[in-house]
Amino acid sequence: MSTNSSLSFLPNNQVDSMIDWLYTFGPTKDQGTTRLLYSEPWIQAQQSIYENFKKQGLTPSFDDVGNLYGRVEGTDSHSSAIVTGSHIDSVVNGGKYDGTYGIISSLLAVTNLIHRCGPPKKPMEVVSLCEEEGSRFPLTFWGSGNITGKYAGKNTDELFDKEGVSLTQAMHDAGFGKGNYTNPVRNDIGSFIELHIEQGNVLEQSGNSLGIVESIVGQRRYNIYVTGQSNHAGTTPMSYRKDAMSTASLLINWITSKVTEVDPNLVATIGKIEAKPNTPNVIAGEVMFTLDVRHHLTEVLDSFCKDMFEYFNEVIAQSGVQVSSSQWMDVNPVKMDSHLTTTAYETTKQFHLPSQYMISGAGHDAQMFGMHYPTSLIFVPSHKGISHAPQEFTKKEDLDNGIQMLTEMLYNWLIKEG
Amino acid sequence: MSTNSSLSFLPNNQVDSMIDWLYTFGPTKDQGTTRLLYSEPWIQAQQSIYENFKKQGLTPSFDDVGNLYGRVEGTDSHSSAIVTGSHIDSVVNGGKYDGTYGIISSLLAVTNLIHRCGPPKKPMEVVSLCEEEGSRFPLTFWGSGNITGKYAGKNTDELFDKEGVSLTQAMHDAGFGKGNYTNPVRNDIGSFIELHIEQGNVLEQSGNSLGIVESIVGQRRYNIYVTGQSNHAGTTPMSYRKDAMSTASLLINWITSKVTEVDPNLVATIGKIEAKPNTPNVIAGEVMFTLDVRHHLTEVLDSFCKDMFEYFNEVIAQSGVQVSSSQWMDVNPVKMDSHLTTTAYETTKQFHLPSQYMISGAGHDAQMFGMHYPTSLIFVPSHKGISHAPQEFTKKEDLDNGIQMLTEMLYNWLIKEG
Repeated sequence: MSTNSSLSFLPNNQVDSMIDWLYTFGPTKDQGTTRLLYSEPWIQAQQSIYENFKKQGLTPSFDDVGNLYGRVEGTDSHSSAIVTGSHIDSVVNGGKYDGTYGIISSLLAVTNLIHRCGPPKKPMEVVSLCEEEGSRFPLTFWGSGNITGKYAGKNTDELFDKEGVSLTQAMHDAGFGKGNYTNPVRNDIGSFIELHIEQGNVLEQSGNSLGIVESIVGQRRYNIYVTGQSNHAGTTPMSYRKDAMSTASLLINWITSKVTEVDPNLVATIGKIEAKPNTPNVIAGEVMFTLDVRHHLTEVLDSFCKDMFEYFNEVIAQSGVQVSSSQWMDVNPVKMDSHLTTTAYETTKQFHLPSQYMISGAGHDAQMFGMHYPTSLIFVPSHKGISHAPQEFTKKEDLDNGIQMLTEMLYNWLIKEG
Repeated sequence: MSTNSSLSFLPNNQVDSMIDWLYTFGPTKDQGTTRLLYSEPWIQAQQSIYENFKKQGLTPSFDDVGNLYGRVEGTDSHSSAIVTGSHIDSVVNGGKYDGTYGIISSLLAVTNLIHRCGPPKKPMEVVSLCEEEGSRFPLTFWGSGNITGKYAGKNTDELFDKEGVSLTQAMHDAGFGKGNYTNPVRNDIGSFIELHIEQGNVLEQSGNSLGIVESIVGQRRYNIYVTGQSNHAGTTPMSYRKDAMSTASLLINWITSKVTEVDPNLVATIGKIEAKPNTPNVIAGEVMFTLDVRHHLTEVLDSFCKDMFEYFNEVIAQSGVQVSSSQWMDVNPVKMDSHLTTTAYETTKQFHLPSQYMISGAGHDAQMFGMHYPTSLIFVPSHKGISHAPQEFTKKEDLDNGIQMLTEMLYNWLIKEG
């Protein structure tokens, strides 16, 4: 078989019909999807995928937190497994593609490959990870975090959903967490590869079908507290004011201007703001705003934050308004495996699939795996960059290009070269 | 009697004990005062003042909205009345001085004068106005607005307090609004003079006991709506963003910087802000903030607002983020009577009372009266500028200086010159 010929042999509407199949589990009245961890739609989705794995000749198995694998044994029984997939849970009223596309594309690529080429050299697994979004319980990456050991020994009794159900209870109700299945921690994974929608508009803007992720950004999140003095809006001359709102706007302005000077990949978001007393005719005594800052290099984050805190100190000295902060998230950047990344890029070029290298500004299961095993993350475009909303959409050509790309990668890796 | 000798003859703690007397009507657990229009503490306070007027030899009478007058007839029966006083209502958990000091100082000045000098030439009235704050029903100046005809024909059936009680009902329950008393509109007022706490810290900063108000500021209030595009905080590069928060901070910065360049009397306050979706990891698609801008000259307000809207248009053109506004308050500046103002200032100088001219940045009953009759407004200092809070405080020396000043004014006006 020539490396220039494509292995793509998807029946015309296969990907669309599979997207629609998983959409039946948790559809909302707004044409969105709500499929929260261990909920009824989640259970039905995992069971349906379990049956599909069986039907396609993959050996299905759950682990004890509800991650679902479909395995094909390799001819080399001592080899570690190549795992591919994504998460089955959704946000509240999310879209059809986030997570599910990664499961569906992996299932299509793997089943097509084995139907066409027979058993691979290495064992191959499609995974439907139980949770990534953090939309039901106050934690994220419950699936990949359990596989990679991050959550080993985690006390699930004290984590509650908004109905007051504990994670332990929800897990038990769904049939998991009682030791009936294998321990989720895996020490036998060789590599992980994930396809996902971009959830941004970089690919749509560049016109490329595929984004080969080099790094997943580090994220730091802060609450910034600005404390001035609440006072009467009419009787306090400007020169006597300690206006927390005016100072907060100065800081926000500095942050959003400064990031554009530092590096095009650096992003900073002030998404949330709260003023006290939040009354039109009273000078704000306190303003709290959040800062979410992301980059794929720790040193860029370090340097930006250092400059920012220096600027805060200048403002404190000049204005007499107090500024303090508390950091509540610090996630390090994760580099994808350079060999896999290069291979992926070369594969796209070989098959004339329009692609580019890029940085993932969002967190993905690939970042959990990437800390432990050689990992690759590939994006397909998101129309207008919309995600976590019913309007989430990726056109069929792009979905198919992703599947072709994954198929070729797995072929080279598992069948041809082993 | 020499104009250089003082008429001040207050028993030592008279003003303090009277402040404490009115404080007994509606005290809160935080040592504050809640005395809302037509509430039980309000009724008790007005009744107690009614009895006090009688005891002091003033003829008490209510009008049909609950304004309470204590009148002394003048020897010239055809003359219009000199009215002095302030409002009896308070904000929720307000202080002891706001409004009540104006009533008490008027009562002390008038009774001292008549006890000392006998009947005045012109009729003289102390007024305890029923409402100014707007803290129970969604309207302000219910007392002075009724006297001056602003509220003539106002439908009170459709104005409700937060318990759902209509203004009509509350008024009836307190015994007013049924035509049992005289129509509140007055066409027989010659002049109005009001003493009030400053509610700012200009006097405390300058060390003066008295502020002779030349003008009460005009106020314009707007909601400013900034509409960008909500998007993912990680996957949207800065150059693709339409960040409503970043744009809002640009506008707030411009406003609060610009006002300090225009005129030291111009003040602008962004007291309230709301972002949507107000989530740390989502770029804000919408931000609404309020603008309260005040100055005593219409042309300064006009010019500032014109420049501001021009700047908004520049920002729209440059950023692609939309900015719109809706104005929900437009109160014109009111000039106090220049003859009264000059007389007041000269009186303070004659009696060596430390004083200054100033602008009132807050609204007062004097602005309602000032649109119809020669009116004077005099401030005493507010400690740290605190008002509308239990910590509201003015020291006795300043309270006494105010009363002396009012007594001298009334003496010159009503007794000596008539």
